[in-house]
Amino acid sequence: MNGRCVITVGDLGEFGVIARIAGRLPQGGTVLLGPGDDAAMVRAPDGRVVVTTDLLLEGRHFRRDWSSGYDIGRKAAAQNLSDIVAMGAEPTGIVVGLGLPADAATGWLDDLVDGFRDECDLVGASVVGGDITRCDLVVIGITALGDLGGRAPVTRSGAHPGDVVAVAGRLGHAAAGLALLTAGLTGPEELIEAHRRPDPPYACGPRAARLGATSMLDVSDGLLQDLGHLAEAGGVGVVLLPEKFAVPPAMEEAARLLGADPLEWVLAGGDDHALAATFPAGVRLPPPWTVVGHVVAGDGVQVKGRSPIYRGWDHFRK
Amino acid sequence: MNGRCVITVGDLGEFGVIARIAGRLPQGGTVLLGPGDDAAMVRAPDGRVVVTTDLLLEGRHFRRDWSSGYDIGRKAAAQNLSDIVAMGAEPTGIVVGLGLPADAATGWLDDLVDGFRDECDLVGASVVGGDITRCDLVVIGITALGDLGGRAPVTRSGAHPGDVVAVAGRLGHAAAGLALLTAGLTGPEELIEAHRRPDPPYACGPRAARLGATSMLDVSDGLLQDLGHLAEAGGVGVVLLPEKFAVPPAMEEAARLLGADPLEWVLAGGDDHALAATFPAGVRLPPPWTVVGHVVAGDGVQVKGRSPIYRGWDHFRK
Repeated sequence: MNGRCVITVGDLGEFGVIARIAGRLPQGGTVLLGPGDDAAMVRAPDGRVVVTTDLLLEGRHFRRDWSSGYDIGRKAAAQNLSDIVAMGAEPTGIVVGLGLPADAATGWLDDLVDGFRDECDLVGASVVGGDITRCDLVVIGITALGDLGGRAPVTRSGAHPGDVVAVAGRLGHAAAGLALLTAGLTGPEELIEAHRRPDPPYACGPRAARLGATSMLDVSDGLLQDLGHLAEAGGVGVVLLPEKFAVPPAMEEAARLLGADPLEWVLAGGDDHALAATFPAGVRLPPPWTVVGHVVAGDGVQVKGRSPIYRGWDHFRK
Repeated sequence: MNGRCVITVGDLGEFGVIARIAGRLPQGGTVLLGPGDDAAMVRAPDGRVVVTTDLLLEGRHFRRDWSSGYDIGRKAAAQNLSDIVAMGAEPTGIVVGLGLPADAATGWLDDLVDGFRDECDLVGASVVGGDITRCDLVVIGITALGDLGGRAPVTRSGAHPGDVVAVAGRLGHAAAGLALLTAGLTGPEELIEAHRRPDPPYACGPRAARLGATSMLDVSDGLLQDLGHLAEAGGVGVVLLPEKFAVPPAMEEAARLLGADPLEWVLAGGDDHALAATFPAGVRLPPPWTVVGHVVAGDGVQVKGRSPIYRGWDHFRK
């Protein structure tokens, strides 16, 4: 223990930290063996397992002065769980590799872990294991697993000309929130909250698979860029109809405050983890799915009546 | 492109790097959907999946001036695959989260990826997906998956008094190699190579499960510390017989050069990824399994005729 009132990760040591984390993680029905061994074991009922990983770095993907430990945990888990549902699968478990500064407060770590746990809880998954190591900055490596329940995975490559393009979930909220924070503003609060913590439409992923989605992905780098990947993978083009995108009042206000074009946030902003999918024309899509365009022969993504806006994220160019 | 003759990760950009990596990764028979979508899909024939993750940081787990990209890739994959076989499972696939400096040479990255690929190839697994992001230091987050083929997992907690304790694989080699490098020496070469690249006895894990191992783990932090975890998990004690441990000539030589006790490397050195397991007395153990002690009622790990040596690794204390 140190002389201050804050107990740090360094005070507890590696195995103290592991025990503390494991104690905060209830194990759900998908888990056959939880934390504490060389590996965990999770149910994979249909004989296949869907797997995705993401690496999040302090200063690049989050800032400890802009987001609480809890929000960072929620966001880190969310972006992985969203990749699982974007295949049409149900998340079952995540493992977390954590790099932590020795002077990180254990209370902050508790919040982070609770964030992982609560986000997993939304989808019936559990945090089944992990690894910790000392690092000068906070590093979070998350891998999520999922089960397709016998369904075919919905990949990026199945779109056909004539399909409709639909989205579910928020678009541009996180980007507007980040722009507000970067400008030193503290509102509109709902956009800043959206930057701190995404709200992916988890249930829409498996539901889209059942509705016959021909392709799907999660919007992490911006709708135009991500639909560009979908168009390229399918060998098709996409036409978006800008009038189909709702711009909520808070985003209009933020745009006024910052002199920005809200549609650019909607079309090019990342980190909300909406789902974008294509469906055969004529499929009745329940809310929150909204048709925003259609698939055409050709290539690329075109916004009808607008010159291209294409400013998606490239980690080595920004 | 920059003006130098070296093409960097930053020159290629995120999606160029991803395409380059994916192009080097053949997908084996366990893979149903490889890199390029929101998630990959791997066979899990017995309806359960074993999963483990590790986070490796430049400067802490490896140094680019001491190890080649290829060796770092081999080592990073090995330590995860070893955790899978330590459950008695067969590895099926890994996913890799990579943090890379923009000025990392693409040739170095190719070597790293080839290292992941070749280590996976040893066990019939594939690199099925990943994530890259920019980072000032190299960060490698690996998650490995495995299948138990209907067997029960061999956990850390099943040892009973009367069982024998056996090890398979090298002990103390990597620690001796690290001590040599730290002292500025370049030999004995086989020990330095052992530090750069472990050689886990992969086939011994599933085989131990079939032989009836009551508990097992991979020796990553040092035999005494890791057997300490096994003893604690099983509510038992372990007695080791020091005369049972072979000290090879190269290690005797290194000990002479450095004025060290080679048995301390063997008993307390990490990173070789040997397997340690307990078996019911009387089980005939084929090579390379070597009986080195036995399980007793009680607690802790005792080295017969020696005072305790317990200097295992704690990431927040070293």
